[in-house]
Amino acid sequence: MTEYIPPIRRLIEEFRKLPGVGSKTAARYAFAMLERSEEETAAFADAILGAKRDVRRCPVCCGFSAGGECEICADPDRDRGIICVVEDPKDVAVMERVRGYRGVYHVLGGALAPLDHVTPDKLHIKELIDRVAAGGVREVILATNPTPAGDTTATYLARALEPYGAEVSRLAYGIPVGGDIEYADEVTLYRAMEGRRNFR
Amino acid sequence: MTEYIPPIRRLIEEFRKLPGVGSKTAARYAFAMLERSEEETAAFADAILGAKRDVRRCPVCCGFSAGGECEICADPDRDRGIICVVEDPKDVAVMERVRGYRGVYHVLGGALAPLDHVTPDKLHIKELIDRVAAGGVREVILATNPTPAGDTTATYLARALEPYGAEVSRLAYGIPVGGDIEYADEVTLYRAMEGRRNFR
Repeated sequence: MTEYIPPIRRLIEEFRKLPGVGSKTAARYAFAMLERSEEETAAFADAILGAKRDVRRCPVCCGFSAGGECEICADPDRDRGIICVVEDPKDVAVMERVRGYRGVYHVLGGALAPLDHVTPDKLHIKELIDRVAAGGVREVILATNPTPAGDTTATYLARALEPYGAEVSRLAYGIPVGGDIEYADEVTLYRAMEGRRNFR
Repeated sequence: MTEYIPPIRRLIEEFRKLPGVGSKTAARYAFAMLERSEEETAAFADAILGAKRDVRRCPVCCGFSAGGECEICADPDRDRGIICVVEDPKDVAVMERVRGYRGVYHVLGGALAPLDHVTPDKLHIKELIDRVAAGGVREVILATNPTPAGDTTATYLARALEPYGAEVSRLAYGIPVGGDIEYADEVTLYRAMEGRRNFR
């Protein structure tokens, strides 16, 4: 035996499929799992199956929902006149940490990458255009990632939304707050220069 | 919504229970899980349940087994006259990576830690003594960890095994091969000095 027995090997292989997990970490997780009680492992397995079963897409913003409209889209206090467009459902939670944003969201489900066959029809772009075309939207904030794919997507959306009269903005990219200019990369610095504002 | 919906929250909480996993990593794992197909998540859940269900203890060495004696204890080519004693089942796989060891193992299931209520009766110590008392064992190699608990366990076992006439040895601790003396900690250096051998 230089290998583990099949049920352990299989568990290690499954843990290895998690993002950023190598074989040592996967083995560590597997052995921790084996030390748990039967109730605890059943709870773990059930959480995995439950999440897959119970997590739905919100029919309005395409973000995560427990069924029907998500909490944000269903909230009467949110301003439906401002839509913040993000790539992934988890980005909604990230943006929500920014206190004070009272608009709603639209989740694209990724960013355009034609070489990887991610064309506009693979993302929830039509749903966004339909929302804006339905009227009442004053501003669309494009919060796609500052990557080539995110930039391409933002450019594509800005053009696609042009006919509907809503203002289209993009998050400002630049030096992170608390960061040090010395350690900023060239692209970030370029963005910071480009987006400079009058000092009042 | 500054939080995730319950099924996602539950999944993140379960991933957080894995060793060394914080909330950011747990969320990353959970979102990766949600992106998988239903078949893939079912396979993951099944691997967890399967490992808990199908992994047994070897009645001889107390290590992992798929049922009955483990592969090592059942192997007629292994030398039953040498028993290497380790703390955890996974240590068997670690020791097996050392080419050339042809003896068998005994898994204690932990190390003595009286303050945490890990007393001799909580470990597979009686089983080890029974094996040695049954005769035919020439040497017991204590490969417990070089920690206070591992050392205490080794000392306890050496004394407990004394009446049976088998030679009791302990792994050598010292500078790691390929390591640099400059970076060795004091305890390791002390162990290396203590265990020094004649230069031939």
